[in-house]
Amino acid sequence: MAARPVNVLITGANRGLGLEMVKQILEAQRPVKNLFACCRDPDGPRAEALRTLAKKHPNISISRLDATDLCSIKECSQKVGTLVGTEGLNLLINNAGFMSKSTLQETTPEDMQYTFNTNEFLPHLRVGAKASKMPGMSTRKAAVVNISSVLGSMQAVKESYSYFSAVSYRISKAALNMLTLCGAEELKKDEILFALLHPGWVRTDMGGEEGEIDTPESVQGMLHVMASLTEKQNGAFLDYKGEPIPW
Amino acid sequence: MAARPVNVLITGANRGLGLEMVKQILEAQRPVKNLFACCRDPDGPRAEALRTLAKKHPNISISRLDATDLCSIKECSQKVGTLVGTEGLNLLINNAGFMSKSTLQETTPEDMQYTFNTNEFLPHLRVGAKASKMPGMSTRKAAVVNISSVLGSMQAVKESYSYFSAVSYRISKAALNMLTLCGAEELKKDEILFALLHPGWVRTDMGGEEGEIDTPESVQGMLHVMASLTEKQNGAFLDYKGEPIPW
Repeated sequence: MAARPVNVLITGANRGLGLEMVKQILEAQRPVKNLFACCRDPDGPRAEALRTLAKKHPNISISRLDATDLCSIKECSQKVGTLVGTEGLNLLINNAGFMSKSTLQETTPEDMQYTFNTNEFLPHLRVGAKASKMPGMSTRKAAVVNISSVLGSMQAVKESYSYFSAVSYRISKAALNMLTLCGAEELKKDEILFALLHPGWVRTDMGGEEGEIDTPESVQGMLHVMASLTEKQNGAFLDYKGEPIPW
Repeated sequence: MAARPVNVLITGANRGLGLEMVKQILEAQRPVKNLFACCRDPDGPRAEALRTLAKKHPNISISRLDATDLCSIKECSQKVGTLVGTEGLNLLINNAGFMSKSTLQETTPEDMQYTFNTNEFLPHLRVGAKASKMPGMSTRKAAVVNISSVLGSMQAVKESYSYFSAVSYRISKAALNMLTLCGAEELKKDEILFALLHPGWVRTDMGGEEGEIDTPESVQGMLHVMASLTEKQNGAFLDYKGEPIPW
């Protein structure tokens, strides 16, 4: 039996890891019906590569979504709802993020921003879970994958802080980790899977040139991990190789 | 040799755990020179018990501090600086907090608030550390004790979420835990100790009537733990009995 096509949404899809995810998901064997590639400014110069890609692939739907602006999230969710209808959304990848490299003493309240994407897309994910005839949990049924970082690990602070403080980034990732764990518990009854992925230290704008791996390797790993997720990994914090990261 | 009197600041000192801390610190053998008892509305009806206490104890200095208002934090810090002078501040207890019992789906961005107290008081803590002639770290030299909760533990979500969601509280405590760990790393060179305490499940307004212990027991435990802290516990997450809590 051929796999049923799924609906996927990716935030921060105009560059870096997000753009590479869009590319690799399109190339994969597992069919995608609608790929919502979200970014803050779909018409701006920083989304040109995404627009070029979308011209070749009609299943890409470029959507405006600013993860710090609840109105734009709501608008995007409405659009997604209209397009996916009774099939619902199967996979939400919260990838958008920024890193402030400030130290503790430079950190301001404004540095703290959270993605409240997930709440707005839950209705579509519930529809996706119900429309799926598969038992258990999977990223082809209904799942939220939050791109976190090992820097969100409490246990990693001691070994890494001296050469890389990034306080507000660490705090926002620790908060994202907690949010994800709460989601995992709260929505397991709806069979919506929640997972946290650490992309590795990648040579992107954010990771810098000294990164250990390139973007395609990170994304290949993460998509492989996503495809392998079941209810056993609900609430898991894994790196791009599938290795668990301690809290 | 008699112990040197110290300067202590407590936020949320008008009721619950904060007020009890003020009481017990005054009763303790370890002398306190200035006890800055901070609350949002020192002249309001909710601070009456604190005002009554302050009339009997001239070393209590009631100060306005709204942990969500940076201006009020700065003003309070200036006042503290004027009063402690070259002795500096020895112990900052960030106790103020509120709990929103919302589920994930009820959580709004407004629920997320952080205390940026610590940054503003660091200069006085540095002075306190330098003025002290004691080696190592202690809460009588220079320390920040953040009142956290086991609900901020990632590992506690699975067992506790079904009967007590409190998503934004968990997130804010996870964020506080990370902030504290970063502080511990960043300021160890200044010999300022950072620690996280879980007060237990206390019968306060926040904890409710079903709490396991009463306020005096919790505070007695926490003050005992604080008195025992050394550089070995820098960055530790301990309950009111001194037991470590997993992240």
